[in-house]
Amino acid sequence: MSLLVVGSVALDSVKTPFGEATEVLGGSATYFSAAASYFTPVNVVATVGEDFPAPHLEFLRSRGVDVAGIETGRGKTFRWRGEYSYQLNEAKTLDTQLNVFEHFAPRVPDDYRNPSLVFLANIDPVLQRDVLGQVQRPKIVACDTMNFWIAGKKSELERTLKEVDVLIINEGEARQLAGEVNLVKASRAIMGLGPKTLIIKRGEYGALLFSGSTVFAAPAFPLETVFDPTGAGDSFAGGFLGHLAKHPAMDRANLCKAVIFGSVLASFCVEAFSLDRFRTLTRLDIQHRYREFKTLTFFEDLHP
Amino acid sequence: MSLLVVGSVALDSVKTPFGEATEVLGGSATYFSAAASYFTPVNVVATVGEDFPAPHLEFLRSRGVDVAGIETGRGKTFRWRGEYSYQLNEAKTLDTQLNVFEHFAPRVPDDYRNPSLVFLANIDPVLQRDVLGQVQRPKIVACDTMNFWIAGKKSELERTLKEVDVLIINEGEARQLAGEVNLVKASRAIMGLGPKTLIIKRGEYGALLFSGSTVFAAPAFPLETVFDPTGAGDSFAGGFLGHLAKHPAMDRANLCKAVIFGSVLASFCVEAFSLDRFRTLTRLDIQHRYREFKTLTFFEDLHP
Repeated sequence: MSLLVVGSVALDSVKTPFGEATEVLGGSATYFSAAASYFTPVNVVATVGEDFPAPHLEFLRSRGVDVAGIETGRGKTFRWRGEYSYQLNEAKTLDTQLNVFEHFAPRVPDDYRNPSLVFLANIDPVLQRDVLGQVQRPKIVACDTMNFWIAGKKSELERTLKEVDVLIINEGEARQLAGEVNLVKASRAIMGLGPKTLIIKRGEYGALLFSGSTVFAAPAFPLETVFDPTGAGDSFAGGFLGHLAKHPAMDRANLCKAVIFGSVLASFCVEAFSLDRFRTLTRLDIQHRYREFKTLTFFEDLHP
Repeated sequence: MSLLVVGSVALDSVKTPFGEATEVLGGSATYFSAAASYFTPVNVVATVGEDFPAPHLEFLRSRGVDVAGIETGRGKTFRWRGEYSYQLNEAKTLDTQLNVFEHFAPRVPDDYRNPSLVFLANIDPVLQRDVLGQVQRPKIVACDTMNFWIAGKKSELERTLKEVDVLIINEGEARQLAGEVNLVKASRAIMGLGPKTLIIKRGEYGALLFSGSTVFAAPAFPLETVFDPTGAGDSFAGGFLGHLAKHPAMDRANLCKAVIFGSVLASFCVEAFSLDRFRTLTRLDIQHRYREFKTLTFFEDLHP
């Protein structure tokens, strides 16, 4: 099934306790499509500046990502600069230069207008809805957002959420959106806004899935080398929706599998700076780590 | 198999966003033995003051806990006063009155001197070692500790850890003890100090087990009503060691089961103030939640 993502393509400068990377490939749509590309072809709608290095597009193409929807705008590419402390769970943003991303008006190419799945990465909820207006109703609409939109464009966000099937946000955002600290109660409030399925990302602690009466908890993979957490959430979404693009059933068994694939892709993402881990990662690596997740979480029945 | 615990019995005053409880039953040995009592008889060594309400001892006795080792010292019972914010993951201590606990010199009654399992709750590591000197070498020695001893009595703690099989501590303590933020690396450093098995408690995020080459991740049970997190860690230890007292094999399968029983008991503990949940909890409730943990974490194999 065809998968469309709309989001950012950026140049990131990241400092972690383990090193530093300057003006490397980043952005939500980038991480998402690289991760999803292990499961299905991906169409990207985004914008870059005239200074965007061609090899980055070449890399995405080599991963089976269609980049015809990445427009080159007049000006410079979106830049983000951030830093992580030893704790690694949260980035401190040092600088954001929106550049061409400031006036991003997503235009979905004709070829992309009949997607089976859409991922609306973290952009203005008005733009997210605008994208949905440009395409035939997809089977699954998934969406991310952030504190900035929850605080500043709550009613626009709520209008968008009415059209969303799967919301993928982090723990703090879930609490903020619901106005409720308890995550079980928060999940019910959020699902009342529209999404039938909610994934709450918890960084190094894993993820929770709520869908109908299903609650599923997946840990993060305990890694010895977490190099750079940037993009982990979008890689999670890429693995999750990539799997659903191949196996679109929305039943419990398939959704839980998709959460594990999301967790697998996130776990690889953080092993290197930028998207570097996806330059060598293979489908076999992914299958191997899926099985390691099984070992990590398996315990026997009460009376085997 | 016989299970001995040495730790505190206290009167707690706790304030949470959901209510307040004054001078209610608390203490590490208390929570531990109530939780473990669902699996095995428990012997407690602790001290209380002359003001300790007799009904509390009666409650423990009704749970199959032998309280003959709880000495009544001259003076008042250990008191702790704390507060939790909405986040609930960490207590803010408002007041500690050690009272009789200040000069606690654990004396193991003759009847208790041949235990199969010992849990050394969070007390001075010198006293923990002193307890081990009073008993025949148990099959399993498990131990808790805290930042106070890690910072203030590191070398004494390290001497104690040489005699410990299972260390059960929280995430921050593990990082502090190992001097290492990454938990996989920290686990290796800690296991180099003696314990062959390490459990890292992560509050609302669950627990990690490290043992030989085994790594096991268990989530916390997503609860809609977390009333009072006090005692969750000791209830976890009680469920974990209670199961091992019944089924003492230290292989992967059995240890993972024990972690789930620990998580189950912790999840019940936080549903009410003090030990109140253990006043009504049944063995059937525990089995039911064990099965719910299975549902919460189960996902299918890659190619079923």
